[in-house]
Amino acid sequence: MVEKRKPIPVKEAVDRVMKRAAHVKSESVPLEEAYGRILAEPVIASHPVPPFDRSPYDGFAVRSVDTKGASGESRITFTVMDHIGAGTISSHTLGEREAVRIMTGAPLPAGADAIVMLEQTVIDGQTFTIRKPFAPMENVSPKGEDAKEGEVIVEAGAFIQPGVIAVLATFGYTNVQVATRPIVGLLATGTELLEVNEPLEPGKIRNSNGPMIAAQLKRMGIDCRLLGTLPDDEDACFNMVKEAIHECDAVITTGGVSVGDFDYLPSVYKRLGAEVLFNKVMMRPGSVTTVAHVNDTFLFGLSGNPSACFVGFELFTRPALISMMGNDKPYLPYTKAVLTADFAKANPFNRFIRAIYESTPKGSFIEPAGFNKSNSVTSIARGNAFIVLPGGTRGFQKGDEVDVLLIGKEEGVESWMLN
Amino acid sequence: MVEKRKPIPVKEAVDRVMKRAAHVKSESVPLEEAYGRILAEPVIASHPVPPFDRSPYDGFAVRSVDTKGASGESRITFTVMDHIGAGTISSHTLGEREAVRIMTGAPLPAGADAIVMLEQTVIDGQTFTIRKPFAPMENVSPKGEDAKEGEVIVEAGAFIQPGVIAVLATFGYTNVQVATRPIVGLLATGTELLEVNEPLEPGKIRNSNGPMIAAQLKRMGIDCRLLGTLPDDEDACFNMVKEAIHECDAVITTGGVSVGDFDYLPSVYKRLGAEVLFNKVMMRPGSVTTVAHVNDTFLFGLSGNPSACFVGFELFTRPALISMMGNDKPYLPYTKAVLTADFAKANPFNRFIRAIYESTPKGSFIEPAGFNKSNSVTSIARGNAFIVLPGGTRGFQKGDEVDVLLIGKEEGVESWMLN
Repeated sequence: MVEKRKPIPVKEAVDRVMKRAAHVKSESVPLEEAYGRILAEPVIASHPVPPFDRSPYDGFAVRSVDTKGASGESRITFTVMDHIGAGTISSHTLGEREAVRIMTGAPLPAGADAIVMLEQTVIDGQTFTIRKPFAPMENVSPKGEDAKEGEVIVEAGAFIQPGVIAVLATFGYTNVQVATRPIVGLLATGTELLEVNEPLEPGKIRNSNGPMIAAQLKRMGIDCRLLGTLPDDEDACFNMVKEAIHECDAVITTGGVSVGDFDYLPSVYKRLGAEVLFNKVMMRPGSVTTVAHVNDTFLFGLSGNPSACFVGFELFTRPALISMMGNDKPYLPYTKAVLTADFAKANPFNRFIRAIYESTPKGSFIEPAGFNKSNSVTSIARGNAFIVLPGGTRGFQKGDEVDVLLIGKEEGVESWMLN
Repeated sequence: MVEKRKPIPVKEAVDRVMKRAAHVKSESVPLEEAYGRILAEPVIASHPVPPFDRSPYDGFAVRSVDTKGASGESRITFTVMDHIGAGTISSHTLGEREAVRIMTGAPLPAGADAIVMLEQTVIDGQTFTIRKPFAPMENVSPKGEDAKEGEVIVEAGAFIQPGVIAVLATFGYTNVQVATRPIVGLLATGTELLEVNEPLEPGKIRNSNGPMIAAQLKRMGIDCRLLGTLPDDEDACFNMVKEAIHECDAVITTGGVSVGDFDYLPSVYKRLGAEVLFNKVMMRPGSVTTVAHVNDTFLFGLSGNPSACFVGFELFTRPALISMMGNDKPYLPYTKAVLTADFAKANPFNRFIRAIYESTPKGSFIEPAGFNKSNSVTSIARGNAFIVLPGGTRGFQKGDEVDVLLIGKEEGVESWMLN
């Protein structure tokens, strides 16, 4: 008899997974290796930025009080007493109508409280004249204007992008406390699978899901433990999965989750005492995607069909792993775009169609990336987004605006915005 | 005297850079290391996909001719002769009203040309009945429906994302010919710069641009050669830059490109005989960004101000390096969003304001990421996009729709869509 499964909505499935995503530990890494990791602690300003009153221009540091009354008719003359570049401190304290020639980035000398830009002067040897008064702190980047000492600059949980690296460097973080990366194991199932280096045989295909998932993980900065192929035997499957969950935070399997005669995973989950969060989702492709959870380890049972496998990973595995690292933007970015092709068929379930998204000043457009059955592999290679057609809708026409999820952003977004 | 420079429009500056981006060589890498690289050769289907007529369901393989006339009132009975899973070939050739029980992914046995899904049958021991006729090839994934043998599946120049990995695996590419990564050297300038591990000193700041650029390069998969800090001496600068261009495809410097008294790079470019593509761009921040070119090597003279440095890299260095690898999507993705804050000031030049972009079913919104002077470092850490306010415009109000460039996409787009 074929087991009857009760499908649940995609959003409900996403929520069930995310509720189980417990945080991993943290570790310290050198700044040079911190790009792409998730901050385990906030970045705190260890000093004000800039750390001193700073000249943002090439010019002359003056006392604003000496500039009072300057005009085109009544120019005021200053005498240059010193000349400093960035990184240099002038030992001179400004007296009346004295100035220090100063370059961008240098600290104001003692007594100075304004910067006259070079182009605001007429220079004559060691003197120059100005023709307008300057207010206190005019043309000055005051100490602390960018950041105050003790201020939280970046919150814990943030993705470490290049700008975060810049503030870490500014504040002298030679080492950074980041979330450890979840340990993810990968088990393929399917007696039809050949390795990439094997010649094709009748009835067989090469395992493309394994390398694909390894790359999906690598895109997130996560290495994948290749744990081999599950044998065509339920007891052996059980033992391999049991061993995998001991060493991994998440075990991904491809194939074997359906209700076919050789799909052993459902009974393996049962024997492991795993809680099956769902085993049928109202979506195409990937409706058989199963997620289970046991001893703090996720079991992601993805479809063996390439397109379905890809969708299952991006919708469930990716956000769970990101959330485990403490990041609060685990979801694929949402946008809208205008369809450039008809989708005549009705959609009983949510459909995720691999597609090519383009945004231009004339609008945002999306077209299917080719052949889009669940077993397609070529359309995965061509797309950069999913068209999402909600379940319960009739067909869509060219020109209709549709929901889109973008694939391949280094950072995600905070919430799942679809049903 | 202060040198007068003639600023050119951003688009013109981008074009001048891109015209000089010559392709680098290619190399072979193992499939496991190919993610994130650029294909140097197209991916060609070495066999049809699927490679055989394939069952997309769990069910029974039958001869469609035997199903003619089946109805609820006149069910037709079949006898099951064999039972195969994926990867298995049945040795049985179907005779009249014979069937083979078949699982998803298995090849159709000889004689069969249709699949009856399990749920379309009533099973009784070794027989089952059907109540509707099946057309030839009904419920069959025919050989080659996804890809024909010899078809170009992915063009040369494509970014190798996980879907490309899947097709490479499918077609048995254990090694992949990819573009070599450009060799990029980084030289900091500025006597005010401390290393990240040094304690703060009066008048000095830590070098944040170096680690930031290294991370911007790492985001593109490119390692950066840290070539040190340029000394405060023109001859020594000349010698260091000259050495750098011999070993690098691109040399990035930060600071020292302005017209200040300690800015030696303009004269270094002259002594090298480099062609200066531009040294002033109509943009804020980063108007002093300079790009020069000599002996097939780019010299990217980025501003020493962190925000300006970041912008200069993303607008000029990034697309040039991507284009050198033969990829045709080197530009930051464009989108539009509604401003959530006023920008009262007029914009004589194009402004690139580091900002936080969010797209939701209710619309796309963008807000500035905080303090946005060219010397700001904190706003770089907080944003994921640039607000682009065109030069020659008056202020913008909250609620206005503005141009946006997205930062941090793994892939870019094909064209520069802004002026």
